[in-house]
Amino acid sequence: MNQQGILVVISGFSGAGKGTLMKALMEKYDNYALSVSATTRQPRAGEVDGREYFFVSQEHFKSMVENDALIEYAQYVENFYGTPKDYVEKQREAGKDVILEIEIQGALKIKKKFPETLLLFVMPPSAEELKRRLVSRGTEPLEVIEARLKRAAEEAVGIEAYDYIVINDTIDTCVEELHQLIQAQHNKTSNRLDFINEMRKGLSQL
Amino acid sequence: MNQQGILVVISGFSGAGKGTLMKALMEKYDNYALSVSATTRQPRAGEVDGREYFFVSQEHFKSMVENDALIEYAQYVENFYGTPKDYVEKQREAGKDVILEIEIQGALKIKKKFPETLLLFVMPPSAEELKRRLVSRGTEPLEVIEARLKRAAEEAVGIEAYDYIVINDTIDTCVEELHQLIQAQHNKTSNRLDFINEMRKGLSQL
Repeated sequence: MNQQGILVVISGFSGAGKGTLMKALMEKYDNYALSVSATTRQPRAGEVDGREYFFVSQEHFKSMVENDALIEYAQYVENFYGTPKDYVEKQREAGKDVILEIEIQGALKIKKKFPETLLLFVMPPSAEELKRRLVSRGTEPLEVIEARLKRAAEEAVGIEAYDYIVINDTIDTCVEELHQLIQAQHNKTSNRLDFINEMRKGLSQL
Repeated sequence: MNQQGILVVISGFSGAGKGTLMKALMEKYDNYALSVSATTRQPRAGEVDGREYFFVSQEHFKSMVENDALIEYAQYVENFYGTPKDYVEKQREAGKDVILEIEIQGALKIKKKFPETLLLFVMPPSAEELKRRLVSRGTEPLEVIEARLKRAAEEAVGIEAYDYIVINDTIDTCVEELHQLIQAQHNKTSNRLDFINEMRKGLSQL
């Protein structure tokens, strides 16, 4: 194959199961690299610096922006989120498919900057199931969950820009679907131009 | 799912193995319908009317064009090729994914008329392998094969318009790849608008 790794954005409503899916995908296949975003928001219970996010100060984030160290960044409520450039570039050069788990604002910026990016939006099977999952997590009070669902409804406005809707009904099936969609991207004509040119040359020399 | 079947175009150089792939795909999965084109060209040895093509006269073909009975048609060397509309529409309404095995000219017309069509281009692993396959078929003299390869090189000019390049190295693997690419198309955002709207409505009503 010898291709550069592709860039994949995965977004989805909170509670759709993105985190669990990414964990399962990373465990099952070794051709992926999960980009860790930088954020100025406070860590939630159980979150580890450098694993879920790089938790940085407003000042530090500002300096990353100024030093062009982020592929994209976005403000969300009062916090900033950004994708460190260095990691993404190195992993792609090494042939890894790099996955960014980011919000829709950031996703659209990435797509504009890198049109070949594969944008995937993970959805629960239904709105009721999304609420059920968020409630059963038990980590947040009902009013926070309701705010989150309201946000989800608002986020749904931008979904049309994504390439595929992936419905997370059962984790295993969904992981396989994600894997196949991402691997198929390597065969997109735009990612196969070298092969096509080689074929042309080969045919003309027969 | 309850979706209308999607439209898929499969093209590729003669000798790339399209016929064998289609046969294997149809045998393995029952959600596909293979559209049979109408043509004014003479049947080759072993070809059966209504199976490989509907072999029709120039006059008959002309009347199909005049009666708007073809989705697209194209002239190729001295012969006409066209896709009968009736079959495609009925099968798609019944939820079957309809596959058109047509030339690049026709493929581009289809894509223009139905932008959601999935265009797949089947390639042999290499130019040498393509020649080897054509020669080993033993059905045509070398000069016909060479003309065919020359044509293949010319056809390669339009490949960039296709969505995916599918390399036919081993039949089984390639059939699976085709199947997955086609099924993924059902989850294209543009094919999931009903689901997205349902989700939006559901979220706003929670």
